[in-house]
Amino acid sequence: MKISDLSKQIKIKKSFLCVGLDSNINLIPQCLSDMQDPVYEFNKRIIDATAEYAVAFKPNVAFYEANGAKGWETLQKTAEYIKTKYPEIYLIADAKRGDIGNTSKMYAHTFFKSMPFDAITVAPYMGQDSVSPFLEFEDKQVILLALTSNKGAFDFQKIEDNSGTKLFEHVLRKSTEWADKEQLMFVVGATRAEDLKQIRTIVPDNFLLVPGVGAQGGDLRSVVENGINSNGGLLINSSRGIIFADSSKDFDKHAQQQAKLLRNACYEAKPEFFDN
Amino acid sequence: MKISDLSKQIKIKKSFLCVGLDSNINLIPQCLSDMQDPVYEFNKRIIDATAEYAVAFKPNVAFYEANGAKGWETLQKTAEYIKTKYPEIYLIADAKRGDIGNTSKMYAHTFFKSMPFDAITVAPYMGQDSVSPFLEFEDKQVILLALTSNKGAFDFQKIEDNSGTKLFEHVLRKSTEWADKEQLMFVVGATRAEDLKQIRTIVPDNFLLVPGVGAQGGDLRSVVENGINSNGGLLINSSRGIIFADSSKDFDKHAQQQAKLLRNACYEAKPEFFDN
Repeated sequence: MKISDLSKQIKIKKSFLCVGLDSNINLIPQCLSDMQDPVYEFNKRIIDATAEYAVAFKPNVAFYEANGAKGWETLQKTAEYIKTKYPEIYLIADAKRGDIGNTSKMYAHTFFKSMPFDAITVAPYMGQDSVSPFLEFEDKQVILLALTSNKGAFDFQKIEDNSGTKLFEHVLRKSTEWADKEQLMFVVGATRAEDLKQIRTIVPDNFLLVPGVGAQGGDLRSVVENGINSNGGLLINSSRGIIFADSSKDFDKHAQQQAKLLRNACYEAKPEFFDN
Repeated sequence: MKISDLSKQIKIKKSFLCVGLDSNINLIPQCLSDMQDPVYEFNKRIIDATAEYAVAFKPNVAFYEANGAKGWETLQKTAEYIKTKYPEIYLIADAKRGDIGNTSKMYAHTFFKSMPFDAITVAPYMGQDSVSPFLEFEDKQVILLALTSNKGAFDFQKIEDNSGTKLFEHVLRKSTEWADKEQLMFVVGATRAEDLKQIRTIVPDNFLLVPGVGAQGGDLRSVVENGINSNGGLLINSSRGIIFADSSKDFDKHAQQQAKLLRNACYEAKPEFFDN
């Protein structure tokens, strides 16, 4: 998908919401357990219930791999379901891949050719030749890990060189030499507003995928205020808070409600952006 | 597998050889193309031909994922074939995974529970909580990326902090606080002998998985000289140079010959280690 089309959807839906399909088979509502592919049935109902409020879906590949070959079929069917029924929705493979050139090329083929994903998350540790094979596909994007939202982010990502530049800042600066904002996004955790401000000084134009935001609105407002740019520039992800909001047979209605709350919080954080 | 059992095999086989099963379906010999699962048939013949000389096999997950659900079945069958027929051989999933805790937990379950891998390669960028779920399994190991052999290794891995410590050195030092040599190995590219020497001063006791070594013996000798420790401490990987040495119907004999050459080169680099 072109970045301009994603920006357009953000304006139309008045939303930055990305729904994370971390569809853990052990947490699927009981009412689906006798079906032939419970995870797929779960995903379809979550997708249909939240598509109105979401501009992106993000299956987390680990949760599909965990079910072996059957899980890969579920992933493939889920991706195809989304892109057939909601072609305007941006589809991200949360896979955190990254390897030497000939191997990354295989991963790129898997997610961009065999499956209809628009983007894939990639780990930057191995540098340019581990990322560039993903950049060879037209209208597809790499979402590079920069500053993640977990505790372990402090182990290496914030190490400073002798000029005071942190590792995640090196990742931002260096990678923007490899590709422009039409091809490159960054994963940026929502834990600290100052970090987001600083990141926007380095990559003012790229989209940021922001995990770790709750529906409470507090940090979501700060993420929007500090992260928004003229294209929107934000995808704000929520996974468990939406998809596992409830485990009754009406689980999808509860997911919908949570998605709507987050969408509304996006709008309310910056109504003037969406109303213009 | 326990590290002591791996060390024992290295002595018995007089070999550090790890055969990388980067079994690209497009490079499988013609003679197998009509079979129901050409990649699996290929792997079985490569495994049977080289098991005498190899102490480890390392399927590269990307090449299986690329074939979708069927590829995952091939990966599962290959792993089971190896561990059933050659339980003494160390089995590595080259997957370069790494994500927040609940996601890494799923990956660990996939490779260590659903499949019989002994070890998995993991990217360190996201820090301790992305690695620790893999460390919860008894007699399984994490092989953490430290200094890789590709050109992109220079982009971030060699960035120095203000005390002159490089990023890959931080990875070595920090991660050895999380686990000991029974659970933790490192990926170290074979490109420069000085790097290997320096790495051995930081992690004298851990096993190193070394890619990028040719059958010529030149850099293999230097890798053995600088990398060996009292447990052996080395797994020297060759993938394409062995498995795609030939594409005739006798492809496995050629693979065997290449594996034997590399095994012999391991022995000749340090006969006194193996003969004692």
